[in-house]
Amino acid sequence: MKDLLTGLDIVDDADVLESLAHDDAEWAPYGKPVAAVRPKTTDDVRRVVAACAERGIPLVARGAGTGLSGGANAVDGAMIIDLSKMNKIVEIDAENMTATVQPGVVNDDLKKAVAAHGLWYPPDPASAPWSTIGGNVATNAGGLCCLKYGVTRDYVLGLEAVVGGPAGAYGTVVRLGHRTTKGVSGYDLAALFTGSEGTFGVITEITLRLRPARREAPRTVVGAFDSVVAAGSAVAALTRAGLLPAALELLDRTCLRAVEEWKHLGLSADAAALLLAQLDSPGAAGDEEAAAVAAVFREAGAMWAEQSTDEIEAEALFAARRLAYPALERLSPVLTEDVCVPRSRVPDMLAAIEEIATRHGATIATIAHAGDGNLHPLILAPAGDEQARLAAQAAFEDMLTAAIAMGGTVTGEHGVGLLKRDGMKQELSPSVLAMQVAIKQTLDPLNLFNPGKVVG
Amino acid sequence: MKDLLTGLDIVDDADVLESLAHDDAEWAPYGKPVAAVRPKTTDDVRRVVAACAERGIPLVARGAGTGLSGGANAVDGAMIIDLSKMNKIVEIDAENMTATVQPGVVNDDLKKAVAAHGLWYPPDPASAPWSTIGGNVATNAGGLCCLKYGVTRDYVLGLEAVVGGPAGAYGTVVRLGHRTTKGVSGYDLAALFTGSEGTFGVITEITLRLRPARREAPRTVVGAFDSVVAAGSAVAALTRAGLLPAALELLDRTCLRAVEEWKHLGLSADAAALLLAQLDSPGAAGDEEAAAVAAVFREAGAMWAEQSTDEIEAEALFAARRLAYPALERLSPVLTEDVCVPRSRVPDMLAAIEEIATRHGATIATIAHAGDGNLHPLILAPAGDEQARLAAQAAFEDMLTAAIAMGGTVTGEHGVGLLKRDGMKQELSPSVLAMQVAIKQTLDPLNLFNPGKVVG
Repeated sequence: MKDLLTGLDIVDDADVLESLAHDDAEWAPYGKPVAAVRPKTTDDVRRVVAACAERGIPLVARGAGTGLSGGANAVDGAMIIDLSKMNKIVEIDAENMTATVQPGVVNDDLKKAVAAHGLWYPPDPASAPWSTIGGNVATNAGGLCCLKYGVTRDYVLGLEAVVGGPAGAYGTVVRLGHRTTKGVSGYDLAALFTGSEGTFGVITEITLRLRPARREAPRTVVGAFDSVVAAGSAVAALTRAGLLPAALELLDRTCLRAVEEWKHLGLSADAAALLLAQLDSPGAAGDEEAAAVAAVFREAGAMWAEQSTDEIEAEALFAARRLAYPALERLSPVLTEDVCVPRSRVPDMLAAIEEIATRHGATIATIAHAGDGNLHPLILAPAGDEQARLAAQAAFEDMLTAAIAMGGTVTGEHGVGLLKRDGMKQELSPSVLAMQVAIKQTLDPLNLFNPGKVVG
Repeated sequence: MKDLLTGLDIVDDADVLESLAHDDAEWAPYGKPVAAVRPKTTDDVRRVVAACAERGIPLVARGAGTGLSGGANAVDGAMIIDLSKMNKIVEIDAENMTATVQPGVVNDDLKKAVAAHGLWYPPDPASAPWSTIGGNVATNAGGLCCLKYGVTRDYVLGLEAVVGGPAGAYGTVVRLGHRTTKGVSGYDLAALFTGSEGTFGVITEITLRLRPARREAPRTVVGAFDSVVAAGSAVAALTRAGLLPAALELLDRTCLRAVEEWKHLGLSADAAALLLAQLDSPGAAGDEEAAAVAAVFREAGAMWAEQSTDEIEAEALFAARRLAYPALERLSPVLTEDVCVPRSRVPDMLAAIEEIATRHGATIATIAHAGDGNLHPLILAPAGDEQARLAAQAAFEDMLTAAIAMGGTVTGEHGVGLLKRDGMKQELSPSVLAMQVAIKQTLDPLNLFNPGKVVG
């Protein structure tokens, strides 16, 4: 094996390998890889794929490992392709508002680089300071501003990937999609690969659509509610009022306190839940929308609701939102849920979460991309407390069932990975599952690309 | 056959069948169907698909027949599924900003229906007064406002389709995608079906994302240029300036004159080309953007450029844009091109079109979704003039080659159908073509759904 990979950066140190063998999903199983490799170019990836395919060695590609579904977890005997060294921004084409990047570029690094050209890459998963564009594309990552600006897939114009199967021998390099803003020549394979969690091939380059930078800072409106369900009702009221914030986030008291204890941002946590809305229509329209949002919050029963006039405070609140997950993770292992329901059902789903927590005696904190109907109940179970772990897992499964019953999905943005395979089987019909499996078998007949994930 | 389709609306009148056997693509071949059927429900479609599959009869689904690539053209012996009677708006869910429709609903009818709820369905192909949502989804139709608001795919949340292959017997009904705004449970089959031109199954219901209605009429800025290439340079300058209009359309003198002769809208045609920009940022920001666009037009060498203060005039100009194709079609058979290039290459592509027209002695009028880089050169060839027809076809092929050389695609929004099959083979690598074919074979192993289209 090693002779075929001469000159490549191979990792076989047991401790490092162990750290590369899994992502950030709690209690998702992972196996023992044979080695990891850190390619720097597409050609490096091509060599690795060809060499491993020849020996039947499965391939698991990974970025920063911030995934929360076990999508990047190794199977026994796998070669890990750590793409973190493929972190070059290949081109920022300001004239065409596109960027072409290697998969290991960190989301926030891309944002900063394009901002220097007056441009904006909107997709902003909470993991943006660490997670990579490759991982974002593999999971079709969402984030805070999806409500108005869409998800990662909406920004992927074209991809380069190393594939096998019908395209040719394993190790064939293909370009999918377009560099243009429109394009319908053939089936939309770039969209199909987006969100496929590395099960069709290894993505080695991505061309992304950008937008002009926003000309002014968005307004932030904060509403405080005496229950999470009341906050959920305000979310539904906002949609009914035809208001479309750039972001609409929910944070419950447990999350706020965990962040405050860690970071001392000066947040008070009197309310049971906060809603944070960001309005970015330019000029006076933005102010009008902010006022309208505050009014809807108040009508929906907010304890108080106001536009934040203090930019530092507004930034601290969104920082708290982004830090909620690591803040809780400091305290205890956290099992993260990712259900998405129609917006009108957000209060129902929040009530269901409370009921499920009570029934199983589980501790659940909730953050949510509330405007998308995408909820992240975070189930805490102290390390070593077997009863808490079992309660957490039972609550996790019950929340999936509840979301499906409300017309929702088991995963809004984190992906199927390992943790949602059973949930997906509940959600999709056997016919649709059979179509999924057939497409996987067609594009990866040797089942070498991230085996066992999504349809495994 | 007929006994299996008892109670369905079967068409076997030769003249009607002839009219249903093709779309609006000039010179695209079409065969002689055995019959056409006009289902009213998903179950009707299910029966037709099952009965035809049993007899090996190919199926060609169609909406209004406004397609321009031959994608809805019959093959010999096909059963045509005319979906125009499946034109019910099943649900407008204002609380969740979604609409669920049968495929035969006309685009403009949906727009009107959702407007009554304060909502907006943005995709607006020029055919919107006639074309159906089913056809729009089948081709992943674009339109005027894609620049800022995306294409049809960006609005398709979920689909119902009658399929065969891995899903089960031909005639199996599946639901793909989600009703929620986010969802990543499994491969994105709704996105894969969007733009697949009916080659994977028959779409029988579509759930679409909507947006809040715009609160005020957009501003229109008109710029007049003394050459189409100069107008193209202004398009590139606009992108460089970071301006993102809701629409940015180009109309050349031939198109303007053809519309004026037909509709008498009071348009003057002194300029070689007009650019029409629509700005819809609310309030003062919209006015500022309109002024900025006019300034960019002037700096780029416009003869004149100004914001239209007359709403009727502005509406007439956009009507002229939408009517350009039928206006030219009144005069002569028209072969419609649909190349898309990176925006910075729009002036180069416009120059290439002029050169190609001169070289082949072809008459070419041009309309363009210029801001998308999506150009529609319309090649005129008087009926019966064989030399003009040959020149038109040679020009058509040369434009494809030129677009590919500029990093563009052979079809931005009309689809591959029959007319772009060779162009697609030029554009995509053999490996990518093989992936396309493999997916078609997987999802339609009997090759019954719209055979010969896209990858045929």
